[in-house]
Amino acid sequence: MSQKEENAISPCREEDFPEWYQQVIRAADLAENSEVRGCMVIKPWGWAIWERIQLILDGMFKATGHRNAYFPLFIPLSYLQKEAEHVEGFAKECAVVTHHRLEVRDGKLVPAGELSEPLVVRPTSETIIGAAYARWINSYRDLPILINQWANVVRWEMRPRLFLRTAEFLWQEGHTAHETEQEAWEETVRMLGVYERFARDYLAIPVIKGEKTESERFPGAVRTLCIEAMVQDRKAIQAGTSHFLGQNFAKASGIRFQSREGKLEYAWTTSWGVSTRLVGTLIMTHSDDDGLVLPPRISPSQVVFLPILTKENCRSQVLEYAERLANSLRETYWEGQKISVEFDTRDIGGGNKNWEWIKKGIPIRIEIGPRDLENLSVTLYRRDRPHRKKEAVLIQNLPQRVCEILSEMQQGMLQRAQEFRCKHTHIIENKKDFYDFFTPLNSEKPEIHGGFALAHWNGSVNVETQIKNDLKVTIRCIPFDLIPEPGKCIFTGEPSRGRVLWAKAY
Amino acid sequence: MSQKEENAISPCREEDFPEWYQQVIRAADLAENSEVRGCMVIKPWGWAIWERIQLILDGMFKATGHRNAYFPLFIPLSYLQKEAEHVEGFAKECAVVTHHRLEVRDGKLVPAGELSEPLVVRPTSETIIGAAYARWINSYRDLPILINQWANVVRWEMRPRLFLRTAEFLWQEGHTAHETEQEAWEETVRMLGVYERFARDYLAIPVIKGEKTESERFPGAVRTLCIEAMVQDRKAIQAGTSHFLGQNFAKASGIRFQSREGKLEYAWTTSWGVSTRLVGTLIMTHSDDDGLVLPPRISPSQVVFLPILTKENCRSQVLEYAERLANSLRETYWEGQKISVEFDTRDIGGGNKNWEWIKKGIPIRIEIGPRDLENLSVTLYRRDRPHRKKEAVLIQNLPQRVCEILSEMQQGMLQRAQEFRCKHTHIIENKKDFYDFFTPLNSEKPEIHGGFALAHWNGSVNVETQIKNDLKVTIRCIPFDLIPEPGKCIFTGEPSRGRVLWAKAY
Repeated sequence: MSQKEENAISPCREEDFPEWYQQVIRAADLAENSEVRGCMVIKPWGWAIWERIQLILDGMFKATGHRNAYFPLFIPLSYLQKEAEHVEGFAKECAVVTHHRLEVRDGKLVPAGELSEPLVVRPTSETIIGAAYARWINSYRDLPILINQWANVVRWEMRPRLFLRTAEFLWQEGHTAHETEQEAWEETVRMLGVYERFARDYLAIPVIKGEKTESERFPGAVRTLCIEAMVQDRKAIQAGTSHFLGQNFAKASGIRFQSREGKLEYAWTTSWGVSTRLVGTLIMTHSDDDGLVLPPRISPSQVVFLPILTKENCRSQVLEYAERLANSLRETYWEGQKISVEFDTRDIGGGNKNWEWIKKGIPIRIEIGPRDLENLSVTLYRRDRPHRKKEAVLIQNLPQRVCEILSEMQQGMLQRAQEFRCKHTHIIENKKDFYDFFTPLNSEKPEIHGGFALAHWNGSVNVETQIKNDLKVTIRCIPFDLIPEPGKCIFTGEPSRGRVLWAKAY
Repeated sequence: MSQKEENAISPCREEDFPEWYQQVIRAADLAENSEVRGCMVIKPWGWAIWERIQLILDGMFKATGHRNAYFPLFIPLSYLQKEAEHVEGFAKECAVVTHHRLEVRDGKLVPAGELSEPLVVRPTSETIIGAAYARWINSYRDLPILINQWANVVRWEMRPRLFLRTAEFLWQEGHTAHETEQEAWEETVRMLGVYERFARDYLAIPVIKGEKTESERFPGAVRTLCIEAMVQDRKAIQAGTSHFLGQNFAKASGIRFQSREGKLEYAWTTSWGVSTRLVGTLIMTHSDDDGLVLPPRISPSQVVFLPILTKENCRSQVLEYAERLANSLRETYWEGQKISVEFDTRDIGGGNKNWEWIKKGIPIRIEIGPRDLENLSVTLYRRDRPHRKKEAVLIQNLPQRVCEILSEMQQGMLQRAQEFRCKHTHIIENKKDFYDFFTPLNSEKPEIHGGFALAHWNGSVNVETQIKNDLKVTIRCIPFDLIPEPGKCIFTGEPSRGRVLWAKAY
């Protein structure tokens, strides 16, 4: 068997990254397109990953004082119109409900009961939540309001892509209202920090925190902060955003309160969200040519037992031995939580089972055959090593060894992603190098081709538009953690207040 | 202060039960109507109850082998039409998406981009999930499929009522596919059992398990099973349903598989669901004239500490003492879980704070003032006793006493609800008594007026229709746990195979 054939995913990353991405999803049985244009079906393994994301983030939101609530799916057209930039930003991608029943006319089922005012399926909930906050808030004593909702939203997509861009997607949206500008700004920054920590510590994805330029701002926001990840084709993915909305939405929705000084003032609001897009980011960051690779902290299960039951005469002994070990591992704590263990006894052939779990990205596979039983050991495979590389572990060492490996993997995956991003992030000092960097055929330095470019910029939208038209490259953010270093815009020679982050993006 | 004035909710249950219900929701700050007709906003305390319901049920579903997944919000019109009874059942209450963007025409924002096929916002997901199962299932080896989804659904409501009947509601819907009729039927019964146990053991709501008559069946089902609860106005609420769908939806969606014998066969499917309606049922079952009363197992928190901070000179001592006790209670386990404790130091007056928590239904309130500090005790109030009835508890006994009370409350609330239902369930042997039972002004026996009636019935839809028209009374179910006892229909004198359960219902 040639090296080539050994990979489970075809094409491989180098050959065709977008197609490889689709195939990883299919091989791991995460999701599929439905017959409803742009809407996906999230299958159990994909959903289990999203459930882990929800559970962990929800805990982080609650630890920062937020509570969950739920607001209507439908937004009256008139609400959406209250904020001019907002409606302009979303008008082109709204699913609109116009009727409230069906009836048979001329033998055909057709919409009936036309609504006097059409309803929009929420693309985001600033306006409908704003209307509620306007009812709830009277005095500074009612502030802050710190609420999050887990919900589905719809933005009609012309070029859908599983997880990354779907017409319906699932997300959380935090919506907060504050007494002062300062408080609202601090909240905006705080939640960006939560997203960064979550991405880093759980998804093992290093992200760059920063601020969007005006042209990439959320429609209606005063400032939009974001976290940007680099995936393995060196493109950027916006993995989460946190918006400082100023008083824009408070004015649009009439969120006013009696201040401590007895004056009627508009509240300061924020909103922030991450979505099922995180699952796509996770896949593109860590997966390899054998399929998904899951960081142990986010994997629905950390370990799968694969008893080898081919020999009839010792089948029951192997099974019993494996079950005892699996149950003991289920009582083992890793990072304060019991290890989640799958036990796969399906009769579909050892090779098939093994490959299925490789493609699903489970961190550790434990094979147990008659010989392991004799040796009082197991054969362990880890997903962050080549799939044939095995390790014999004596059963008395198994719990400890599993914990060690899980910790190593979690750290190792983050480190690998950090190194990858570091290797493909370059300071670029002139226009020619910039164009070379983003144009494969022109490149004189192929070894530093593509990725994140840090370059000076004069702050002009025109330059952004030009670059986007020429190279499909955009400013991903003005990074927070760069030491401000004045310079000259590499495109115009005009003064720049600091480097910004450029990349092609999903 | 008169006895009357002491109740927090006006009107009281006896005066106007439906209005009392609305006022309990408002007083506990659970939910409110939005400006979108029939859609509610679920506020944080209401959502926290739903979150508890989700968490516990989700565990029960997983323990019975189910996994979660997620299917599209939108259903193509053509899918809905595949099952004739199904589309007829839902056509009158469908929100229909006809356009996918908005544009300004004559200065007015209007729907644009008309869809070639309208999309229905899911009222339930049999058809869209059926289409997926048809893709996934090829062989008997692919069966059973045991999937649940947590989702929002929309059924246009002409007379909405918070939690009980809303245009958008939240629910879980289980959808399973099986190789045999027997297996599918067992699943249908199993999940009804899960619902019954959940209602009884967590919500402290005793329910009657049974089967719906043909006229009350889910559109497209072969058999519909249900759990029925009695609330305090002696009406019934259908709290959950489990449908045996036979091969109806498999035929409609083309869910076929190669059998063990190599034949192509249709799968047998089930579906089952409970919704945010459970929150309404919970409110109507247990609340009193002071507001919500929550069973400890479902309450988002079990205990609230209310330090009395009015005396400036010992404020910090009281606070410190109360915090120490609260933290120690937070580390106390009740039924294997840490007790959830609220700590309310808001400066809104002790009486206001106390009443707020009474109305929110928290099981135990603990007041701590300077005198408690002197006595090394606390003053404890429980929600299932009159609000003034207090109990001094020495601090060394506090954890144990709290656990005792929580267990007592959980059991006591179920027992009280069982006794109430028992008291208001009557065997009725003739038509006159039946009409009297359900007609207040005619009643000659007011002490047994209203509630559940067990009466013989000939099995005819015509009789059901007549009774519904005359009395607004319907057959809630054919109870499972009644010993079959042949008799004569009390309306027609015709043979009956057993008594059925009649009631007015929400």
